This record gives sequence, structure tokens and C-alpha cells, in this order.
Amino acid sequence: MKLTIVGCHSASPRYDANPTAQILEVKGHLFLIDCGEGTQVQLRKFKIKFARIKHIFISHLHGDHFFGLVGLIATFKLLGRDTPLHIYGPKGIKQAVLLQLKLGKTYTNFDLKFHELESNQPTLLFEDAILSITTIPLKHRVYTNGFLFQQKPGDRVLNIQKATQLGIDPSYYQKAKQGFDVPDSNDNMVSNTAITFDPAPPKSYAYCSDTAYFEQIIPQISNSTLLYHEATFLQQHAHLALKTMHSTPEQAAIIAKKANVGTLLLGHYSGRYNDYNEFKLQAQKIFTPTKLATDGTVFEI
Amino acid sequence: MKLTIVGCHSASPRYDANPTAQILEVKGHLFLIDCGEGTQVQLRKFKIKFARIKHIFISHLHGDHFFGLVGLIATFKLLGRDTPLHIYGPKGIKQAVLLQLKLGKTYTNFDLKFHELESNQPTLLFEDAILSITTIPLKHRVYTNGFLFQQKPGDRVLNIQKATQLGIDPSYYQKAKQGFDVPDSNDNMVSNTAITFDPAPPKSYAYCSDTAYFEQIIPQISNSTLLYHEATFLQQHAHLALKTMHSTPEQAAIIAKKANVGTLLLGHYSGRYNDYNEFKLQAQKIFTPTKLATDGTVFEI
Repeated sequence: MKLTIVGCHSASPRYDANPTAQILEVKGHLFLIDCGEGTQVQLRKFKIKFARIKHIFISHLHGDHFFGLVGLIATFKLLGRDTPLHIYGPKGIKQAVLLQLKLGKTYTNFDLKFHELESNQPTLLFEDAILSITTIPLKHRVYTNGFLFQQKPGDRVLNIQKATQLGIDPSYYQKAKQGFDVPDSNDNMVSNTAITFDPAPPKSYAYCSDTAYFEQIIPQISNSTLLYHEATFLQQHAHLALKTMHSTPEQAAIIAKKANVGTLLLGHYSGRYNDYNEFKLQAQKIFTPTKLATDGTVFEI
Repeated sequence: MKLTIVGCHSASPRYDANPTAQILEVKGHLFLIDCGEGTQVQLRKFKIKFARIKHIFISHLHGDHFFGLVGLIATFKLLGRDTPLHIYGPKGIKQAVLLQLKLGKTYTNFDLKFHELESNQPTLLFEDAILSITTIPLKHRVYTNGFLFQQKPGDRVLNIQKATQLGIDPSYYQKAKQGFDVPDSNDNMVSNTAITFDPAPPKSYAYCSDTAYFEQIIPQISNSTLLYHEATFLQQHAHLALKTMHSTPEQAAIIAKKANVGTLLLGHYSGRYNDYNEFKLQAQKIFTPTKLATDGTVFEI
């Protein structure tokens, strides 16, 4: 899994600060998560191939998370896209996009498949052999979901030395990787665990923005490899976080610690701050493996 | 009058190329003309004071002319704006903006005054002591208006030498500037033209984008000081201009010449061209005083 921060800021786009958008790459899939104004320009800047984006996930309908969506769709059309585009987001997103396209008589040549969300329970949005994607219901001023991207366990890893030593025919290797016992050269069955290792534990990425401090998400995001949790206001402005239903770095860190995640990634900084290091320092008092999202940074998960 | 090109391109925003937006400054007024995605970032870059924008004119509802509008309005709210904002644009613009604001529960603290347009006749949109603003109905794939900004004639200019020589009391100077005859030191009436010069001819700016070649606009834009006329495609792609109801530099130049304007300004270049000089060269074969709009350039009218 590879995460590219396309925009890390909250509220208004600025010349040097883009509103929320991220690209998650998982074995050939390219998922766009949120799409603030100017996202398509950022995608070009970071050389993301537009045609590879087939699924877009919108957390909520505040402008800094979705005002770039309709423009991106219009550009897909101009680029001659002909493959379907799946859009997952709160109820209303379909009307907002289609109304604007209709006003400009900008009818797409490709299928726009809207998956409108209303549930306050975790909902499976996508599943294939590689991964599943589930909503993480959050707590914000409007209906908001985070998204949990969970890789599926891969094949078992063949212990090639042991397999050779036991004279197992290579035609059985694939079966062994799939977890089956297989015969040795004397046709005696060999226990699978004797010739394979456990696969690497499946990776997972939990995206949680925007949200107030909300402990209900902890069971669902437990043990995630990487947690992105918004931190809009520093501790000294905790009253603003409370009022606007956002979080502080400390609150994000408490969630990360309680959920026992691998790494915490902060973002969605308010425009009032110019130095983001203080976000990291405040979080690290509680949870050491904390990193900062900044535009253009790439995280290998 | 001072015109700032905020974005000069057509279609999709790019890292180095912004879709259409212009700022026209007329004696304290700051008018925003069109508002493609990313316009608010460009306005910041060019240090345009957001609070001074009280009137926004949207030519038509293609994304490269209005997808930046709702984001700009949301930013006005974040900045604490409390003065009304007037928005002039095709019917449907109100619904598109309000739907998106409503979905995000982003209610503005200031009055949003929509002036929806449907007429195919020139329509007066704004008038005060300084200028008038009228629609220029254009010919495009969707309902589109250009805008004609016409300054009103100023006061007559006092010939101070002649006025002194004739012994005219300075308390009459204001009346003389307003065009009245006034008494000299012997109480003989002096003809106004004897002591005043004609005022500078009033300036005007005609904004015409997007449009096919459309001669019907000529009477209305005749003798404009500056004409902005779109030129999306070069002559070698005239068939694309025809098909998409855009113009070539040559067509823009013919309109400029027939309308006897002072200067022609080209813009709305298709993304397929990297060098814009060819636009100017093609137009100048027909109309010499042709200039190119590029992002950030300022034209004194």
C-alpha cells in the first residue's frame, strides 16, 4: 500500500496549501479519498495517472473535501474516459454533481456510478481478492464517514529449502502456498506448516477525517497499520475543536494509542498555523510513532 | 479601468494554467468576471482583496467559468464577510450554489443576491454614477453572456488659464465643469465651451467569452476601448472551433476590426497549445493592436 498526500489542509485552498485529498495505491488499484478544490491540479503535479482512478471516496460534503469532484469528472470527460467511475459519498452527492454537469450540458461518455451513503453503521463498500473497503462512521457537524482499507492475507510463503529437501514436486508448490498439505517424493503427506511460513500480516489503512474525538471508532480501527486522524487545532485551541467538531493532536494520539495502531498520521491543519511541527510534538507526548501529512509526501504502508 | 487576468485558459485547470477569471477595477469597484476552479487561489496570488469583491459576473455554466464560485463563497464565509454579494449569471446558478452550500450546512452570514439571466437581449445589470454594466448575448453551446462595462463621461475639464484671464470667480468652477455657462467679473455670461475642454472619452471594456464568430455583437461593442474576445483554437483547427462553438484568432480580429475597438485581447486558449504567440500573429494579420491575456498580466484601459 502506498499513500500519497494530495492535500493536507482544512478549509480554503491557498497558493501553498491544498484542501484534503489522498491517493491510496493497493496492488494496481488507485483510490482517491476526498477531493477538495484544486485536487485535479495536484494530481497532475504528483503525476497520478487520471485513467487509473476508478473509485472515489468522499467523506462528507464540506467544500474542502468535495468541491474539486465535479471539475475532476468534467476533466475525465475531456480526456475521453470511457471506463466507469464509482463515487462513494453521503446522500446528496449525486444530485450536486449531476445538477452542475447538466447545467453545463456536460454529459459524460462514461458511466458515473454513485453509491450514496446514509448508514451510521460500518458498511462494506468494495471487496475483491486484494482488499476490502468499509466506512468508519465519524462524528462531525454533517454526516461523515472515514474509510478503512484492509488488505486480505496473502498466500503462505514457501520454505523453498525445506520443500526441496523433502523432494516435493514443484507442481505442488502453488497448493502448498494456498495452505494445503502436499505429498513428498515418497507420497507421504507433509504438513503444510512444515514447508511454509505465515504470510506477512495484512496491511490496513484507516482514514478518519473530519471528526471530533470519538472513541466509538476504536474497535473498528484497532491494530491498523496506519491511521490518518485529523488534527485541525492545536491543544491551545481545543475550545475551537470542540465547537467545530474537530480534533486536537492529543485527541488523535489518544485514539491511536487506544486502538494500538502502527503509525499515526496527522493532517487537516487549520490555516491559522504556519508551522506544523507543534502538531507532531503534541501528539508524540502520548503516541510516539506520529508523522505529519504534508502535500506531496508519500507513505509506504 | 484596470484589468487583471486571473486565469486565461479554457477547459481543465493545470498546474501552470488557470481557467477563466478576470478582475476589473473601476474607480474603487472590483468586479470578478467568471470564476473557474482555483480562482480563489489565483486571487490570493495576485493579492486581490477578497472583501472588495461585491459583484461577480458568470458568463455561462461550463465548469471552466464557474466551478470556483461555490468555493469562493465558502471562503468569504470563513473570512467573516458580512456585506452582500451580488452574483449575475444564467438561470440555474442559484440552485447549483445553494444546493452545495446546503449539503454542507454552510450557511453564509452575508446576503447572497442572485440575479439570474435568461434574456437573449442586452440587459442592464448595474448602473451608478461611475459606470454601467450590460450583458452581451453570445453564441455558444449553452446560454452565454458577455459583459460590457461602460464608464460614464466625466466632468468637463476647466481651462484654468482662460477662466483666470476672464476673471471668473472660482466659486463658479464646479458649475463650469458640469457644463453650465457662468458669469465673468463684469457679470457677462461666458459660453461654457470657451472655458472648458471636452472630458476624456469614457472608457469601455467588452468581455466576450465563450462564443462562436457572432457578428450580431458588433453594434453593441462598437468603439470599445478594449475588447476581450475568446480565441480557443488556432486557424489550423478552425473545424474544432466551428464544432465546439468557439473562435479562432482571425475571427476575433475580424470582430475587433468591424467593431473598430481600440485594442483586442485574446484568451481562453485550448490546452493543446504551449506557445500562444501564434494566436497573436494570426490575429495581427487582420487587426494590429492585438494583445495576449496571460495569467497575472494587468492591462490599464
